[in-house]
Amino acid sequence: MSAKVGVIMGSKSDWETMKLACDVLDELQIAYEKKVVSAHRTPDLMFEYAETAASRGLKVIIAGAGGAAHLPGMVAAKTILPVIGVPVKSSTLNGLDSLLSIVQMPGGIPVATVAIGPAGGTNAGLLAAQILGAFEPDVQDRVQARRERIQREVLESSESL
Amino acid sequence: MSAKVGVIMGSKSDWETMKLACDVLDELQIAYEKKVVSAHRTPDLMFEYAETAASRGLKVIIAGAGGAAHLPGMVAAKTILPVIGVPVKSSTLNGLDSLLSIVQMPGGIPVATVAIGPAGGTNAGLLAAQILGAFEPDVQDRVQARRERIQREVLESSESL
Amino acid sequence: MSAKVGVIMGSKSDWETMKLACDVLDELQIAYEKKVVSAHRTPDLMFEYAETAASRGLKVIIAGAGGAAHLPGMVAAKTILPVIGVPVKSSTLNGLDSLLSIVQMPGGIPVATVAIGPAGGTNAGLLAAQILGAFEPDVQDRVQARRERIQREVLESSESL
Amino acid sequence: MSAKVGVIMGSKSDWETMKLACDVLDELQIAYEKKVVSAHRTPDLMFEYAETAASRGLKVIIAGAGGAAHLPGMVAAKTILPVIGVPVKSSTLNGLDSLLSIVQMPGGIPVATVAIGPAGGTNAGLLAAQILGAFEPDVQDRVQARRERIQREVLESSESL
Amino acid sequence: MSAKVGVIMGSKSDWETMKLACDVLDELQIAYEKKVVSAHRTPDLMFEYAETAASRGLKVIIAGAGGAAHLPGMVAAKTILPVIGVPVKSSTLNGLDSLLSIVQMPGGIPVATVAIGPAGGTNAGLLAAQILGAFEPDVQDRVQARRERIQREVLESSESL
Amino acid sequence: MSAKVGVIMGSKSDWETMKLACDVLDELQIAYEKKVVSAHRTPDLMFEYAETAASRGLKVIIAGAGGAAHLPGMVAAKTILPVIGVPVKSSTLNGLDSLLSIVQMPGGIPVATVAIGPAGGTNAGLLAAQILGAFEPDVQDRVQARRERIQREVLESSESL
Amino acid sequence: MSAKVGVIMGSKSDWETMKLACDVLDELQIAYEKKVVSAHRTPDLMFEYAETAASRGLKVIIAGAGGAAHLPGMVAAKTILPVIGVPVKSSTLNGLDSLLSIVQMPGGIPVATVAIGPAGGTNAGLLAAQILGAFEPDVQDRVQARRERIQREVLESSESL
Amino acid sequence: MSAKVGVIMGSKSDWETMKLACDVLDELQIAYEKKVVSAHRTPDLMFEYAETAASRGLKVIIAGAGGAAHLPGMVAAKTILPVIGVPVKSSTLNGLDSLLSIVQMPGGIPVATVAIGPAGGTNAGLLAAQILGAFEPDVQDRVQARRERIQREVLESSESL
Repeated sequence: MSAKVGVIMGSKSDWETMKLACDVLDELQIAYEKKVVSAHRTPDLMFEYAETAASRGLKVIIAGAGGAAHLPGMVAAKTILPVIGVPVKSSTLNGLDSLLSIVQMPGGIPVATVAIGPAGGTNAGLLAAQILGAFEPDVQDRVQARRERIQREVLESSESL
Repeated sequence: MSAKVGVIMGSKSDWETMKLACDVLDELQIAYEKKVVSAHRTPDLMFEYAETAASRGLKVIIAGAGGAAHLPGMVAAKTILPVIGVPVKSSTLNGLDSLLSIVQMPGGIPVATVAIGPAGGTNAGLLAAQILGAFEPDVQDRVQARRERIQREVLESSESL
Repeated sequence: MSAKVGVIMGSKSDWETMKLACDVLDELQIAYEKKVVSAHRTPDLMFEYAETAASRGLKVIIAGAGGAAHLPGMVAAKTILPVIGVPVKSSTLNGLDSLLSIVQMPGGIPVATVAIGPAGGTNAGLLAAQILGAFEPDVQDRVQARRERIQREVLESSESL
Repeated sequence: MSAKVGVIMGSKSDWETMKLACDVLDELQIAYEKKVVSAHRTPDLMFEYAETAASRGLKVIIAGAGGAAHLPGMVAAKTILPVIGVPVKSSTLNGLDSLLSIVQMPGGIPVATVAIGPAGGTNAGLLAAQILGAFEPDVQDRVQARRERIQREVLESSESL
Repeated sequence: MSAKVGVIMGSKSDWETMKLACDVLDELQIAYEKKVVSAHRTPDLMFEYAETAASRGLKVIIAGAGGAAHLPGMVAAKTILPVIGVPVKSSTLNGLDSLLSIVQMPGGIPVATVAIGPAGGTNAGLLAAQILGAFEPDVQDRVQARRERIQREVLESSESL
Repeated sequence: MSAKVGVIMGSKSDWETMKLACDVLDELQIAYEKKVVSAHRTPDLMFEYAETAASRGLKVIIAGAGGAAHLPGMVAAKTILPVIGVPVKSSTLNGLDSLLSIVQMPGGIPVATVAIGPAGGTNAGLLAAQILGAFEPDVQDRVQARRERIQREVLESSESL
Repeated sequence: MSAKVGVIMGSKSDWETMKLACDVLDELQIAYEKKVVSAHRTPDLMFEYAETAASRGLKVIIAGAGGAAHLPGMVAAKTILPVIGVPVKSSTLNGLDSLLSIVQMPGGIPVATVAIGPAGGTNAGLLAAQILGAFEPDVQDRVQARRERIQREVLESSESL
Repeated sequence: MSAKVGVIMGSKSDWETMKLACDVLDELQIAYEKKVVSAHRTPDLMFEYAETAASRGLKVIIAGAGGAAHLPGMVAAKTILPVIGVPVKSSTLNGLDSLLSIVQMPGGIPVATVAIGPAGGTNAGLLAAQILGAFEPDVQDRVQARRERIQREVLESSESL
């Protein structure tokens, strides 16, 4: 099955966060590819990756980065696919810099930004699934089933307070 | 043509920002509906809107709100469709409160957050179009054509410095 | 004795903070109930909880949540009772996101917000007691006695500098 | 009818915000008194006001202040009544200083903090009414009626987008 | 020798920071007194302390507090002596709340604010000494000697890079 | 009468704020001198000013600056006199940069920081007067009289709400 | 004379700020070129510009942008020349987003960041001149002469307080 | 070989960060000198260092400091050489205070500011090398080679996800 989602990150140190996106995609049986692509250290690779993404069959790109996080926005500038940006928690400013660098895109090139850190990693995978699910009923069913399972877990957690 | 995108906002005062999303959808010939739906003042309407969105044929919801901006996240909690959140610029904290209230969703329920204010309004429309475009080639073509036009405008603007 | 205060929280991980509210209510002999109610993962339960709170005899609701903390505001939108919001300290932005998401409510639906983290947990219990105490003299007497005890503790702590 | 709510503010310049609380109390037929009481310029008056508030029949105090806003917290330290704090928008830091000075109270002395600026003014009046309403059914009915009216206004505003 | 400087703090937990002020005063042979005085938990003691400070012979008051740090400003409102405020580092917002609560005093009642945390503790002692030193040459000489010693330490530290 | 207070500022554009300090000193009959001294554009003049301040009879220096506001801290490094720092409101970050640049001094060299903007201008003058007043009874009497006048103004302002 | 400095900006609306850099370069007789180059709307042009900059004889690049300001960092990733980044003041967050997006570059690719807004525009021109001046004595002489002129202006401004 | 780069820092505790700049200079075979020079504790040494820097043959100065970080800006005021400022991560505000104190310089005296903390340390060394490299081809070649090596490392890191 060819990949429908591309998961990229600016540095291998972002993997801890981005792995959570991959875990969700695995769980929901969505084919994806993953790669380290640095906006600043491998800019040509980044452009090539973004330029060829649609023709390779990807439907959504998930890009995570920290600090002056340019990867999601630059990939968005080079592809017509929807790009989800994950602000990785940075060591100095707790990811506030990552968040603002990703979300404050100028009119013309959007990035679908999710929460800073682990919650954002998980939600990037879910958002990609919900986008696919709007057009593929079986994916949507699996997202729905996951929600119901989590709902049950919340209800049960209340018992043990 | 039935609406594919639902554009909602927490207050009529958000219309100045959210109109920009509608302008883009008009320009790209994407059918949409628009409505004031307040998380805090019309909570039942909000739930009903979100619950019926998918069955009414919507593929994406765009929700704008300011301050303690709960509309995008609560709609996301009640629909399986992708929800785009627009942080409207607030009068006291310049929209930083709107941004954090929308983007910092817990793992499980994502909101695709765009920039604060007008840039976010425009980009919400574009992001909806790119999501649709990943599955509808003619929408994607129109997004591509819009990008090329804007690229030409940037190049020309440089002449007149 | 039927519960006069409802203590709810968005996630079981908020219990460490919210337990402090319960400790104060125990100490002041105020009957309460406690529950995990997630705005995003159990939205219907949340609405039902809020809608039935007044008729079940509750006088005050204490709601704690972190990050994009929508629980207090959404419960406030669905009940006529006073709602106290506790911003739980979040892992990325230290609870500043929780605080702004809870306190910056639009005109029409107030949330009585207390401090971020443990101090807020304790003070939510005390605020609920002071609200009850304004109408029930024996509760007010117990709050007063607690204050006097703490005052003595401060005076004594100075001896050992 | 003797006053049930005391509305105080640190400076006459806070009146523009605090008038909104009084407007709500007028509308809901709740008797109140209003006064300029400065924590820093009339500290003795402030203490006397707080100390005598309960015995004069007040049930709730609303206190507004800006900048290093000490009035709500200091009044709370001197009365057993619930105190609602309104962070007035300051000229330099947009009321973020007012908010933090009011909300970040230490464990032991709570202040029920509402939003910065006009929304907070309105909501302080409503929160006082909801606190009274939990014990006085006719006040609660009037708050409920006001909510329903505003709900209708939201629904109508959607027509004219 | 009667105390010329009063060192007070809102809680015994501030002692770690305020001890640094006392260390400097000890080193510079300036007589001082120290006490826990809480604005919120012992408000009457605070007022009495401030009101009698000048007549007891104090020349400067150093007040440290964290969070909604009202102690320095309220003491300043009740004494004509110069008051030095030390923003103690808070557990949630790193002392930014303490700083703004202390420094943003309204026109009329100044607080001489120093840095957040340990540097502020040390500098509060030094600032008190410099204020006294402007009128007492031997204190000024000891401050000068301390500066020269520290200057030598900096120069030496460079050797060992 | 020779100057006891030196009022300096980093740029003539700071005069609007610093004039308020001079107004207070005039009102309280305290002799002062005023000068534009830029840390960055006239560094040698700044050092000479600071080095000679004590020997010229000054007892306190008030230094105002905005943005990367280095003037108060650098003057403090070159004089043994107490230095009061006024964070002038900056055009981009509202004076938060000015405040942090002035107040966050390292242990060893304190700056007595007051509020951002106009309130800080006024309070710098008052703080200088209170420092002098601790050693000169007639100055202290005038500060006390000013306080009483302002207290009366607050009480009167309440009448006209 | 061929250009030694390249001045680029993300949008024509940045010209008001970037013109100040050009004014300084004109005044100091340094040849430069200027162009609108958008990271997001003309990414290929940006890469081409950066890649050819050194071979075209440029020694320094000045890049200004606002919001999620990716231009300076991405140009830096594609050239070995020193890149000066100017954070243009943004309409929503006052340029704090621009600043963090430019300055928080990861280890490996530096951007020489200057102040937000107009001061940054002017200083970018000066910094470019100082870099050239370290290797070209006549440029350094002109920078020195400009400093001396400004120093005289400061001294004169003090007369008219 | 005489030093071309001067590396200075406000305190020996900044060495952990500044060592990273020295490591890069060592690696790129650029001669440098290093020294602790405190703006506040050794102001005269700082002025002498800055005044003699150009005549001693330095081409670039790297200055690191934390908190109210005045060293880079004050050195820049006293030399015509380009000055690179490194905001050292501070213990209370995570280096946001250091960043704003360094970057927000007024028009007239630029500081080339890099990222907060370790990334800034490394990048200060690289920026100095790129400035030198614009005029010395062999330095530029070594910077280029370093970039290529790092690019290869990124590509390889992707293999092991």
